Amino acid sequence: MNFASDTASPAHPKVIEHLIAANAGPAVSYGADGWTLQAEALLSDMFEAPLRASFVSSGTACNALALALLSPPTAGIICHSQAHINCDERGAVEFYSHGAKLLTLGGKHGRIDAKSLQALLQSVDESFVHAIPPKAISISNLSEAGACYSPRQVSELTRIAKSAGLTTHMDGARLANALAFLAIRPADITWGSGIDILSFGLTKTGAMAAEAVILFGEAIDKFDELQARRKRAGHLPPKQRFIAAQIIAMLENDLWLETANHANQMAKLLEEGLRNSKVIILHPVEGNEVFAQLSPNQTSQLQDGGVAFYTWPDGSARFVTNWGTDKSEIDKALMLL
Amino acid sequence: MNFASDTASPAHPKVIEHLIAANAGPAVSYGADGWTLQAEALLSDMFEAPLRASFVSSGTACNALALALLSPPTAGIICHSQAHINCDERGAVEFYSHGAKLLTLGGKHGRIDAKSLQALLQSVDESFVHAIPPKAISISNLSEAGACYSPRQVSELTRIAKSAGLTTHMDGARLANALAFLAIRPADITWGSGIDILSFGLTKTGAMAAEAVILFGEAIDKFDELQARRKRAGHLPPKQRFIAAQIIAMLENDLWLETANHANQMAKLLEEGLRNSKVIILHPVEGNEVFAQLSPNQTSQLQDGGVAFYTWPDGSARFVTNWGTDKSEIDKALMLL
Amino acid sequence: MNFASDTASPAHPKVIEHLIAANAGPAVSYGADGWTLQAEALLSDMFEAPLRASFVSSGTACNALALALLSPPTAGIICHSQAHINCDERGAVEFYSHGAKLLTLGGKHGRIDAKSLQALLQSVDESFVHAIPPKAISISNLSEAGACYSPRQVSELTRIAKSAGLTTHMDGARLANALAFLAIRPADITWGSGIDILSFGLTKTGAMAAEAVILFGEAIDKFDELQARRKRAGHLPPKQRFIAAQIIAMLENDLWLETANHANQMAKLLEEGLRNSKVIILHPVEGNEVFAQLSPNQTSQLQDGGVAFYTWPDGSARFVTNWGTDKSEIDKALMLL
Amino acid sequence: MNFASDTASPAHPKVIEHLIAANAGPAVSYGADGWTLQAEALLSDMFEAPLRASFVSSGTACNALALALLSPPTAGIICHSQAHINCDERGAVEFYSHGAKLLTLGGKHGRIDAKSLQALLQSVDESFVHAIPPKAISISNLSEAGACYSPRQVSELTRIAKSAGLTTHMDGARLANALAFLAIRPADITWGSGIDILSFGLTKTGAMAAEAVILFGEAIDKFDELQARRKRAGHLPPKQRFIAAQIIAMLENDLWLETANHANQMAKLLEEGLRNSKVIILHPVEGNEVFAQLSPNQTSQLQDGGVAFYTWPDGSARFVTNWGTDKSEIDKALMLL
Repeated sequence: MNFASDTASPAHPKVIEHLIAANAGPAVSYGADGWTLQAEALLSDMFEAPLRASFVSSGTACNALALALLSPPTAGIICHSQAHINCDERGAVEFYSHGAKLLTLGGKHGRIDAKSLQALLQSVDESFVHAIPPKAISISNLSEAGACYSPRQVSELTRIAKSAGLTTHMDGARLANALAFLAIRPADITWGSGIDILSFGLTKTGAMAAEAVILFGEAIDKFDELQARRKRAGHLPPKQRFIAAQIIAMLENDLWLETANHANQMAKLLEEGLRNSKVIILHPVEGNEVFAQLSPNQTSQLQDGGVAFYTWPDGSARFVTNWGTDKSEIDKALMLL
Repeated sequence: MNFASDTASPAHPKVIEHLIAANAGPAVSYGADGWTLQAEALLSDMFEAPLRASFVSSGTACNALALALLSPPTAGIICHSQAHINCDERGAVEFYSHGAKLLTLGGKHGRIDAKSLQALLQSVDESFVHAIPPKAISISNLSEAGACYSPRQVSELTRIAKSAGLTTHMDGARLANALAFLAIRPADITWGSGIDILSFGLTKTGAMAAEAVILFGEAIDKFDELQARRKRAGHLPPKQRFIAAQIIAMLENDLWLETANHANQMAKLLEEGLRNSKVIILHPVEGNEVFAQLSPNQTSQLQDGGVAFYTWPDGSARFVTNWGTDKSEIDKALMLL
Repeated sequence: MNFASDTASPAHPKVIEHLIAANAGPAVSYGADGWTLQAEALLSDMFEAPLRASFVSSGTACNALALALLSPPTAGIICHSQAHINCDERGAVEFYSHGAKLLTLGGKHGRIDAKSLQALLQSVDESFVHAIPPKAISISNLSEAGACYSPRQVSELTRIAKSAGLTTHMDGARLANALAFLAIRPADITWGSGIDILSFGLTKTGAMAAEAVILFGEAIDKFDELQARRKRAGHLPPKQRFIAAQIIAMLENDLWLETANHANQMAKLLEEGLRNSKVIILHPVEGNEVFAQLSPNQTSQLQDGGVAFYTWPDGSARFVTNWGTDKSEIDKALMLL
Repeated sequence: MNFASDTASPAHPKVIEHLIAANAGPAVSYGADGWTLQAEALLSDMFEAPLRASFVSSGTACNALALALLSPPTAGIICHSQAHINCDERGAVEFYSHGAKLLTLGGKHGRIDAKSLQALLQSVDESFVHAIPPKAISISNLSEAGACYSPRQVSELTRIAKSAGLTTHMDGARLANALAFLAIRPADITWGSGIDILSFGLTKTGAMAAEAVILFGEAIDKFDELQARRKRAGHLPPKQRFIAAQIIAMLENDLWLETANHANQMAKLLEEGLRNSKVIILHPVEGNEVFAQLSPNQTSQLQDGGVAFYTWPDGSARFVTNWGTDKSEIDKALMLL
């Protein structure tokens, strides 16, 4: 009954299979291998667009590399005040961007409020050299509160941002879960909604360690800079085929979506069960996360019964399901209440 | 017949076995798992010393994190002019250290010349605020030219360095090969020879992607800073057990040494064969690398015959053997000359 | 009738006199001159404490150098959300500190609320490597809203901060005005109240360009690092005697306090006049700044009559007096309402 | 008899006059004043070209800001191994550029050897992501050895550099002396010879602290970025009129050239005198610096007689004359030998 994080999950057996297959004989190092080519092609097919992709081993590296491409050190990056990049990456964006500033906005359920965005952008005076002007926006989908942005919502934010000259980034550490919930094509919520660079996460939905920085449209021009920054950061692994093979494994037959779907269903079951036990659910469950307001009693009942979850800074309990969560774990956990 | 790099090698089957074993069920993420604890304990046993270790997925990250701990941005790091950190890591040390300067020295076969080191350190005037004073030295063992430093040689350099107040780092991307050649205990060439922080590479000798930043002695105090910097750099992988499992696989029964030994023997065979064909060998073969001076004719004969090797900046040909190199490949390659 | 900023003021005639006197013949460059020694000694006398001081030409450099000494790149610096370092220095602290994060708190009249500070510090979990822990606090006195911290108020903040292991900084760009208001000794509000490093501003109170980073107590150990960082930032002027001479000029016979006193009195007159005209004053006038809520009518009356002031982000009007403000300017401005 | 450095010289009386004149009443701060406009216009007239200029208080800041505009953090900047930016600015370029690497070349008398430049550029393989490609070149005129580049020599270097896609910078800390020696128009040796950004020094030739980053041609597009970086570095002084006034003073009636001319003549006298005393002069005296090889005897004779000079890292003695050097000082110094 481990609901502490989807990063606590093992890798999907298909990932292991592909790793074994990729382990036959020598291969060109540093990304000039066939698996890398194939993985990038599969991504392009899946997103139905030309793109360039770089593979890294953590979501933090993914976000930080992406945003360093979009904002100079002298500028700012707009994000939600609860965004992972603002709260949980130890200043990785500041490190990679050489000191760009995160400019935070509020908004319900971890989604940036469009009106606040508009107000912030209208207040910017580019000629005032003393203040930091925003140059990029980062949108997390799923949000940190487990909620989804719809294509309409993303488009609204990117439209406002772009009309003020900003570039756009999506932190898609749990994009799989968002897409499973929305049941739309990946294109619709990414470049189709105005996203320039995507951090596409596959680790939480079943890989060992495989994330991709994906450049769409004009951002493709930044690929050489991305490669240079990636190497400089030590995120160009010599035997890159082993990340690429994981990506191939996850994309084949839409395994990544199937696993996300399962995780989402488990979260729904958990939500229903908690609601039945009169537990207040704080955010819409639109992916694989359930934020619940537990009484001290309920907290002990669950923890004493062996249920692992994470206490959020606001005091609520965050339950995260994953591709390997079994229905019996949900049932057993709910029985404890 | 791939002698382009030891990074072209696949992972050892034992590594795959351990990955599969580690893939059973959930585990605490971000390094608080049992595999990580075990791997660190095995390292401590192997180095016969208290230590702290952080695991990362590339040698570049390993070196850059280590050196950022040893030098402030305002200081310099002494290394050989041909050092990997100086020539092949796209400024990773400069990035991680926020602009520390690599101060380069010469020396035969990629080994820093002790007299030059002494001369450099004697010329430093700490009170002259305009110049960059060295605060650390980085020694590569194997050197970039495939040569070994003996414990005596390392000790001489670290003694000179420490008496001038410097801290010491060893780039051990191929330490396995050096140790296989020297046939001494790992302690003797590392902390026993005055090394504060070691970049310990296991990828080239058989892992998929597993390197360790290892802190010895007083450097252990820097462990919290290392963890913070590692997280900030995106090198704290959420499912860290999969790096730890590789390290366990490589350390078990000294697999890392066995694989290095094999690679070294293959290099010796290659060296002998090349010498027999009157090819000039440029550096002592003390690990798994052979630097040869080929005629244009010999170059084409080999390349046309399907032998992959790397043309070094000085025009020579670098052949690297690895744990998977088969004697038949050496024989077949030599037949082409 | 220029109330736009105290930086719009010229230099005091005594400053010019000292510049002329310092301009006789050659002098050792880069700070090894007699004026620099004398200025540092005068500062030590004035603050009644051992100290080390470095002179720079802007308050931004002063703050950024000071805070880079107090916080590593991986940590955070607590400040008021309206602090100059947060809003008006284009990310200088982030630049100099290599990406430390400003962690902002609220509080009335630009003064950090002690309870919020306590709450923030209690919520810190140093073992959680993902989040940025605060390592320093920066207190602006005068605050950005023109209010004073008393020694008791500063001591309360520094006591809370220090008991959580933080170091302390005071942005004293207008410390002269604060001291003129408080009528206490400089020691009482700085090291006597727990301040480790002070940015001591003399430009606004009468110099051309003269600010000092002042290290007290244990922070004195960081002097060599300060010098190195200052040189590296291009803030070690070759002919440093000319900054030192300005500092001497301002300290002699407490000129800096006399000028601040005058500015404060002019601000009081302005405040009274505005209140008499039913203008709402938003913050206590405890220095040389008056924040007023003007009607559109009043705004035009003043601007059309040639009164220069600055429109604050919150829509209010900020009037700043300086050492050269003449009572007749106040009278003439008030007549326009 | 102070020949230690031209930075040991006082400011020219005309500079003081202009400072006094600029000190009348309030003026808009942060560079929006009339003096700044006038100084920039005078520079444009003098260089006979459209340009944008930012004024700072040290040559180090000037060079570092200029080069941060020309090289991304992932690239390199070519310079002479003895260049001031490489040896005497405590890593300022590395700091401002966020870790760009100085790639050094040799060449007689501190002048970059054109053939070495060509060879270096031909060896660059942009597709090799591991190595740092040069993106800019920095040429010091005067060189660190006191020698001049002619327009033909500068043009040769910039032509080679530009054909490889590099941008170009001139460190003109002593450009005044070079121009006085060459007796050509400032345009000829700067934009007319292919220079994109110039660090134009006026401090050594008579100002208190006044240097200008000057953007020519397409580099003018980088002006906003320059302003942002300058503010961020604390090099936008609030009372900027006082730097501008110095620049006006130095440009009026070509005072900067007149003072440089005088300094150069004094250096020539010194050179002749030293040669007459059989002292070996190491570099062509083409400005205000004389590098001499003194015997221990000669060294003591001069030092005991009160002559200040600087011992260069190579053991030679560097004598620098300035606008205020009197012929009698030369005579008196020479008499000691």
